[in-house]
Amino acid sequence: MRIALLGGTGDIGKGLALRWGRDTDHGIVLGSRDPEKARSAADEYEATLESRGVETKITGFVNEMAADRADVAVLAVPAYHLTDTVETVAAKLDDTVLVTPAVGMKRDEEGFHYNPPPGGSVSSLAADAAPDDVPVVGAFHNLAAGGLTDLDTEFDWDTPVFGDDEDAKATVMELADEIEGLRPLDVGGLANASEVEALTPLLINLASQNDGLHDLGVKFW
Amino acid sequence: MRIALLGGTGDIGKGLALRWGRDTDHGIVLGSRDPEKARSAADEYEATLESRGVETKITGFVNEMAADRADVAVLAVPAYHLTDTVETVAAKLDDTVLVTPAVGMKRDEEGFHYNPPPGGSVSSLAADAAPDDVPVVGAFHNLAAGGLTDLDTEFDWDTPVFGDDEDAKATVMELADEIEGLRPLDVGGLANASEVEALTPLLINLASQNDGLHDLGVKFW
Repeated sequence: MRIALLGGTGDIGKGLALRWGRDTDHGIVLGSRDPEKARSAADEYEATLESRGVETKITGFVNEMAADRADVAVLAVPAYHLTDTVETVAAKLDDTVLVTPAVGMKRDEEGFHYNPPPGGSVSSLAADAAPDDVPVVGAFHNLAAGGLTDLDTEFDWDTPVFGDDEDAKATVMELADEIEGLRPLDVGGLANASEVEALTPLLINLASQNDGLHDLGVKFW
Repeated sequence: MRIALLGGTGDIGKGLALRWGRDTDHGIVLGSRDPEKARSAADEYEATLESRGVETKITGFVNEMAADRADVAVLAVPAYHLTDTVETVAAKLDDTVLVTPAVGMKRDEEGFHYNPPPGGSVSSLAADAAPDDVPVVGAFHNLAAGGLTDLDTEFDWDTPVFGDDEDAKATVMELADEIEGLRPLDVGGLANASEVEALTPLLINLASQNDGLHDLGVKFW
């Protein structure tokens, strides 16, 4: 499978590239608005994997080229760049599953707070921006950047996955399941996105208030 | 310590009464709008504990009598009865810590959704209704009723606790910690309530979508 990580030079893109690069044989393509930045990140991630004995080819392109012919494209961009990123790559999406891990948050002196767009979730924003025939799946919201990008951090974490297209959701759950120590959990359709997105500021607040709980993940049972 | 469970005939009140009755020596007082119902529930919980070899006295009163002289009063009532319950007992609160486990939810064909009062959290509603000198602490939102009320269910769960009064929060965290298998986690002040309350519909949605995940709890690490 060919996976494009749009905004792949950020923490989520880096972490998913390293994890899928290490744990699977999927083709990993990084996207960025700046192709030079994408290429240099691709080289860096390849070198990180090589230093661990993993030979894999990671390529880097401008976002629309990275999305071209991708089976799955992850919108690893901040929430405020979600819509323009989807619009940039829209013409290249063809049977491509779009994945959004983005969360909208605001911060005050008390902590982080979930801050969705009016009347919806960040994921529904992505779905509204995407072409009608492109399925949008939410996943990977709750993976702490520090743990995700550090291959020495062994996961024992869950990630809730949601989407209205059952086939697309199944594809993303399989990809999540292929990451060592990560368990995808089905949480229904896009209408259930807000409660998943709100988990991220909760994790950040818990980590900041409790000693020894950095790079916090979650397990449901 | 004297703990009043207002609305103590419901699932959350029952579960906390049984757990504190089994695991601690605190005085447990059930409250209800109907004192007869409170007395009969108290008898039932006592009998349940006795059948497990635990001798403890649980009493039942109308809510305002139960709150009288309580060190801690848990608002174990549905979100839409939070304000009127606080108002009913307000005159009896004297150095009493009010605890709210209530969550506002709505349901549609997709699942459960967090449905807070406009501009705030359910917990801030309780704080607004309480006298100014009565501290409000949020806790126990995410304990599945089925598991909580069944003493055969062994916990290995976390419960996030928040509140603006640090002493009151510490008291409630200690009470939570005394329940076997429950780990309280500090999540800051009342301003951080929404993300905690939103965890409950997420747990319900996860339980309904995934086989084998009934009465779901959560652990952060």
